[in-house]
Parts: sequence; structure tokens; C-alpha cells
Amino acid sequence: MKSNYLNRAVEQMASLPGIGRKTALRLVLQLQRRTKEEISAFASSFLEMSEHLKSCKSCGNISDNDTCEICLNESRDRKLICVVEDIRDVMAIESTATFKGVYHVLGGIISPMDGIGPSDLNISSLVDKISLGGIHEVVFALSPTMEGDTTSFYLHKKLKFFPIQITTITRGVSVGTELQYADELSLGRSILYRQPFHLSD
Amino acid sequence: MKSNYLNRAVEQMASLPGIGRKTALRLVLQLQRRTKEEISAFASSFLEMSEHLKSCKSCGNISDNDTCEICLNESRDRKLICVVEDIRDVMAIESTATFKGVYHVLGGIISPMDGIGPSDLNISSLVDKISLGGIHEVVFALSPTMEGDTTSFYLHKKLKFFPIQITTITRGVSVGTELQYADELSLGRSILYRQPFHLSD
Repeated sequence: MKSNYLNRAVEQMASLPGIGRKTALRLVLQLQRRTKEEISAFASSFLEMSEHLKSCKSCGNISDNDTCEICLNESRDRKLICVVEDIRDVMAIESTATFKGVYHVLGGIISPMDGIGPSDLNISSLVDKISLGGIHEVVFALSPTMEGDTTSFYLHKKLKFFPIQITTITRGVSVGTELQYADELSLGRSILYRQPFHLSD
Repeated sequence: MKSNYLNRAVEQMASLPGIGRKTALRLVLQLQRRTKEEISAFASSFLEMSEHLKSCKSCGNISDNDTCEICLNESRDRKLICVVEDIRDVMAIESTATFKGVYHVLGGIISPMDGIGPSDLNISSLVDKISLGGIHEVVFALSPTMEGDTTSFYLHKKLKFFPIQITTITRGVSVGTELQYADELSLGRSILYRQPFHLSD
């Protein structure tokens, strides 16, 4: 390419995960067609985010303040902690409007293949929080993958001596899935952990 | 989402073509994990591009200066003009190293479905350039799609009374392929073996 400015913008765009050079070029050229004000708004949104966005001191969720809105909310049950990998999981669970406790964001998942061990995650702060007492239940809401299971096992080992209830989200056939197309593992678990039938479900 | 800063960054990212909100969120959260210096380099690359990147006065190609490097290059044949839709097509053809003339970037393609007519494209500047004389050949290097063909027909109608040879790249490229995604060999050959333009093609 004949322009250093274009080159640099494409390189930066291609540094985002899953964006290759051809896609980056397409995105940057689309950007270049906008007005200077629009491009300035685009760029400054990331600068402002980097300047102002914080991690909640209590749970690790993103927040514009030191403590996030969920932790500050008096109506949430602080005796119930849901452990998630990522703040996107907080958003996903919040959007279901079924959970009234608070969260603890690990900031990742144990994955030896990627060189991520327990010490890279916010696990000790979870143990500290629980050892202070007053927690009744910890729900593991981790992805039903090898890494998620490994992390759940590790956390269980760390937490099993505390006087708390440790639960995990149910693994089963997802809503809307045709039974015959469900994978055997999910179907097997959904039968093993079958529950009383309620008409309201 | 509970953060205005995050929201704004995600909105801006999702304004790029083909980037949905979920992808935008993933990209923004990956960005947020970087250092302030890295995020600043990311953002400023777009600002600098918007500040400094120009369109070549002669051909419409992108350039860091008023006239692009191709038009300034004394060894290029200025009597031979290759008409392309987009600057990405210039890059694609340049990478084949088979074309020694100069370019004319239309800045789009005739597409009634998208409301793009001849007057939205850099066609009159092409006609002006040719009416000044000294041009021997004009090569249409437009995508072999309905829109590309329409544009070729329109240009042919505009240019056929000038004493120039009008050619078009050979259809070595399969019909329906976007030019910029064609492999270099096919694209290179289609330029080498360009043929006189016929309405019946």
C-alpha cells in the first residue's frame, strides 16, 4: 500500500481478534469515507473508555465508578455469589433477569493450553470474600467446556471447607433444540439431573 | 450494559460494516485489556489517517500527497488508463505487477439497487481526461457482476467516439467474484490478456 497512514490504521484494525488484513482494509476504507467529526467520535470513544472505565473493586465487573451498579444495588442478595469467567457472562445472565444475587468475575478460565493458571485469575479475592463469612451460596456459571469444568473443579477444591452451598448452573438440552440433534453429553446430563415437572416451566 | 463509556465504544465499533453488537463488544473488551499507550496508538491511527490521507487529484487513488505515487511515477505509461471501482482494486492489480499504466478510480459502481447512478461516480473527470487527448487505451477492470457490466456498458457509451482503444480485463475471473478477492494469478492473466470491449460480451 502506498500510504503510511492507511497502513498504520489497517495494522491497528487488524490487531483486533478475528479481523484479518483484508477485512481491516475494508473497515478502514469505510471509516475513511466518513467526516472528520465522525472519525474523531470513533477514535475518542476508545480513548475515553480507556481513561474512565474501571473494574468494580468488589466483583471485577466493568463500571464507570469504583463499585459497579450491581454491587451497589441494595436489593441484590449479597449472600448469593455467581462466579463467571467474563463480564460478557454477567451481561448474558443479567439479560435473563433470573438472578438476584451478586457476581464475581474471574477474568478468565483455567486453560493450560493458553498458559492460564489459577494464579492468573481473580480466585484469591473470591476466597477472601467468602472467608469473611456471610455468604450462603456460590453458583458456578462457567462454560460447559473442558476449561470451564477444570475451573469449577479447582474452585470447588478451594471452597468446599467453607460453610456454604456450592451449586452450578444446570447442563442440559438448550431450549428450542430438537432432542435428536442434541449432543449425547448434554442429553445424558439432562436425564441424569432430571427435575420434577412443573406446568409453569 | 452498565457503563456509558463501554456503551459508546461498542456503538462506534458496531458502526463498522459487518460488525454486529456482540462482535463489537468482544473487540472492545479485548481492546480494553490493552495498555493506555496501545489504546492511544489504536485510536490515533484513525485520527491521523483522517487528517492526512488524501485522494490523488489525478486518479482518485489514496495518497499521502496531492498526487499519488503511481501518477507521479515517470516510468508508468500515462497513455494507458485502467478504470477501477475502488482503491482496493488498485492495490489488487498493483500486487499482480502486470500493469504499467495509470489508474482511474470511479469511487463506486453503477448500482440502481443502492441508488448509485453515473453522476455519483468519477466519470466526468475520466471523460475530461480523455478529451484532452494523448490517451491510447482505456482498460475496464470492473468486477464481473451485473453492476460491473452495467458500468462498463455505460462507460463504453460515453467513450466510444474518442479515438482510443477500449479494452476490458478477460473473464479469467469466475463470474460473480468480487475483484479484490480474486487470486493474483487469475487477476494478473486477465490484465495481460485484456481484450477489445464488445457490447455482446
